[in-house]
Amino acid sequence: MEKQNEVVSFERLYKPKNVLIYKISPKTAFFVQGFLRQGYNLENLYLVSTREDEFLGIKCYRTIDDIPIDSFDLLILSVRRDILINNIIEILSKKKIVFIHIFTAGTGEFDEEGVNIERSIKEILEKTPGTRSIGPNCMGLYCPQGKIAYYSSFPTESGDIALIFQSGDLHSKMVKISSRRHNLRFSKCISIGNCIDIQISELLEYLNHDIETNIVCVYFEGLPALYRNEGKRLLQVLKSMNKLVLFMRGGRTMRGQKAVLTHTGSLASRDVIWKAIFNQTPTIEVPPSINELIDYTYLFSNYIQRFKHLNRTVKYPIRKNALVVLWSGGFGILATDVLTKLGFNMPLFEGKKLEKLKEIYPIKIGSLANPLDLPWLTSDEVYLKICIAAIDDNIDFVMLVSDAWSDLEGDRFKNYYKNLLGIKAHVESLDKTLVIILSDYPSESRQKFYAMLNNDGFILFPSIERAAKSFLKLTEYGKKRNMTL
Amino acid sequence: MEKQNEVVSFERLYKPKNVLIYKISPKTAFFVQGFLRQGYNLENLYLVSTREDEFLGIKCYRTIDDIPIDSFDLLILSVRRDILINNIIEILSKKKIVFIHIFTAGTGEFDEEGVNIERSIKEILEKTPGTRSIGPNCMGLYCPQGKIAYYSSFPTESGDIALIFQSGDLHSKMVKISSRRHNLRFSKCISIGNCIDIQISELLEYLNHDIETNIVCVYFEGLPALYRNEGKRLLQVLKSMNKLVLFMRGGRTMRGQKAVLTHTGSLASRDVIWKAIFNQTPTIEVPPSINELIDYTYLFSNYIQRFKHLNRTVKYPIRKNALVVLWSGGFGILATDVLTKLGFNMPLFEGKKLEKLKEIYPIKIGSLANPLDLPWLTSDEVYLKICIAAIDDNIDFVMLVSDAWSDLEGDRFKNYYKNLLGIKAHVESLDKTLVIILSDYPSESRQKFYAMLNNDGFILFPSIERAAKSFLKLTEYGKKRNMTL
Repeated sequence: MEKQNEVVSFERLYKPKNVLIYKISPKTAFFVQGFLRQGYNLENLYLVSTREDEFLGIKCYRTIDDIPIDSFDLLILSVRRDILINNIIEILSKKKIVFIHIFTAGTGEFDEEGVNIERSIKEILEKTPGTRSIGPNCMGLYCPQGKIAYYSSFPTESGDIALIFQSGDLHSKMVKISSRRHNLRFSKCISIGNCIDIQISELLEYLNHDIETNIVCVYFEGLPALYRNEGKRLLQVLKSMNKLVLFMRGGRTMRGQKAVLTHTGSLASRDVIWKAIFNQTPTIEVPPSINELIDYTYLFSNYIQRFKHLNRTVKYPIRKNALVVLWSGGFGILATDVLTKLGFNMPLFEGKKLEKLKEIYPIKIGSLANPLDLPWLTSDEVYLKICIAAIDDNIDFVMLVSDAWSDLEGDRFKNYYKNLLGIKAHVESLDKTLVIILSDYPSESRQKFYAMLNNDGFILFPSIERAAKSFLKLTEYGKKRNMTL
Repeated sequence: MEKQNEVVSFERLYKPKNVLIYKISPKTAFFVQGFLRQGYNLENLYLVSTREDEFLGIKCYRTIDDIPIDSFDLLILSVRRDILINNIIEILSKKKIVFIHIFTAGTGEFDEEGVNIERSIKEILEKTPGTRSIGPNCMGLYCPQGKIAYYSSFPTESGDIALIFQSGDLHSKMVKISSRRHNLRFSKCISIGNCIDIQISELLEYLNHDIETNIVCVYFEGLPALYRNEGKRLLQVLKSMNKLVLFMRGGRTMRGQKAVLTHTGSLASRDVIWKAIFNQTPTIEVPPSINELIDYTYLFSNYIQRFKHLNRTVKYPIRKNALVVLWSGGFGILATDVLTKLGFNMPLFEGKKLEKLKEIYPIKIGSLANPLDLPWLTSDEVYLKICIAAIDDNIDFVMLVSDAWSDLEGDRFKNYYKNLLGIKAHVESLDKTLVIILSDYPSESRQKFYAMLNNDGFILFPSIERAAKSFLKLTEYGKKRNMTL
């Protein structure tokens, strides 16, 4: 029998009023460090340790019996697998637990004995209707508004991106890399593990109605062997989603599926079925690359935020008219090759429009074509004027190729930056998308320039290709939603 | 009539004994700054300026007549295009010039009048057998051993990589990004422009016998309209190359070819012909992406250097047996998907070998498969032991996925780093290739760790995909050369 969806809201999973960690050890110190960093009320954090009296300044209890209160929203369970079942039985007999995060790894993904352990836990949970569980084999929760995180390196500010990941490490990488690379911020994130109780479909359903969330990223490895209806359910939920779902599957190749079996122990799913699911639902498929997932999330997040800030319904592009602005013939040719292969149009300026551009800038070198090649002009007012005249409703996507500047204090740079801000304002006033292409290499001044652009809300990509592939996802979603510009 | 190859060695182009810049202006200050940075003997640098008496501390002459010496190895010509022809005639009538770098842009790539200017210059040069020219429309030369560069940001140390680029900006990007990202260093680099005299084929022929060069990277846009035999010649030279040539073509799509016409004004070349050329020659084709060119150059350069340092003939892999070492099931699954799609084998450990691995590490979590998933072990001696036992002649390519460490001083990190050095020594003793996969995001500690690894000769890539695609190029070259491991 599959367990019925409980009335208990997942809100208490992400924002637990109190938490019990059983048991804490130096190896899992990161849990406590995460709570400390997020500013969780430590009066509501209870630790059990068989060895320590105090851990990072927090009192430890020796046994479950010493804990003075009777019920917990969240229990983080980190014990050896051979005592896992007994510990669950014991704790549940003594305390009321709403959610259990089973951190313990080496169960269903590891061997037959582990599969049996999972089956037993499932049975125990089925007999305890008020208790739900995530895991085993997962890192658990990150919710800045709930002041809960499992790593101290995660940002304390919240955002509108939710994660449901069947890999703790990818979950951590997603938060860590995207927050540092692009200032991305998150609402409700979960590393869900082997899914012996709470399923991805349930969390999706919940997040679909969560006002804090606009985007849900899923990393999926497979359907749990113990829940035969989850596939059907997942399809139904994906169909009903009114929020953007970016869905990345691991184990897409046969060899990859072999790897899945040693990871979350899920049944591998076939590519052809998934193609059909992606065709039937508004879900956006993401290739097996954490960088692509970050790229797409980043662009979507920025795009959606722009409309939300103006209190407008988000509308997506479907056309692919791109303009490249740069100072380099060679780079422009490579860009043209890449964009053409990806299916972009690169409209040329003609007739009156071209006349106007020539009037603004009677060029002697460079080109008033597309790419718009404007050498020696970037700090000049005419640069902004040309861009404003060139970018109109016929252009959907502007990629401006910038160099890193070594001198960020001089007038030349300041004038250039003013031009960039002017171009951004113009592009956004047309509801179009501007990205800055800035090559990636270790350099202090580049990093400063990058941070400056980041903080001023510019969208940044290290290559034309990555920017363009991300924009294609906007148009893909636009077509699926049919809510287009 | 095409010009005969002159006896004058290109050595004097890259290492000119004296240089005349005609004329210097604030806009082209970077030329002088490049010479200053490289430590060129300023007694041999002559400047002509109609306005300044001194430029960056160097005396300026008012006219060509004021210059006290009669012959120059290199003239850098930077004048308006409408006086270009007259200036060349005047200078050549008064001074002996071995090489002219025509910096002036806006000629053949710009309009019909520009094409005529180029034709006239070609005729003048044909009547002056001792004088050869690069350009117009190019940035010119960078040769650390010749103490010559056109940007002050280029490294002063020399290396074994030569560049021949038909785009000044891509040329600059290649040097700047790859030197900062990977410590790449160069021998003889040239931004060659519209090629009205010296052709790519001539430079390739020269570099093929240049003892300072091991790798030649070419960025090619098209054959010059004025040299009908250059295509045939280029094919012959590419066939005869005994040095690695990494060849990137721009303008491969029809739309890209349109862009070429506004850049170097070259005749666009068809894809099918190029496929045949790449099949018939040992040339390695590079897709239109500066990042891919840098990735490949980086891996090849490291690979070749390793053999050169041991005074051994370079031998390349042809087999594609990869091992991934990591601490993350999810990342391992994505890696497996990517590697399988790229055609790699990921051998599993079996029989005695597996027994041995189990003996070293009786795992409870993680996996002794491939990816080799070793959680909680990275700072432990057993980590090194497992890797040494796992990596044998059956593995060609090892990708070790590392996290950035926040604390680079503690014992845990030091032990980890010792493990990395041990694995590197082991892999290299087998003539195999190890790369470290380190995700890319702004972080001071990550940058320090990256620099540390870079300086210790580790090969670093930001993703499995980029590392794997680069390794494939080694095997492609191995097959072409048939000098394989």
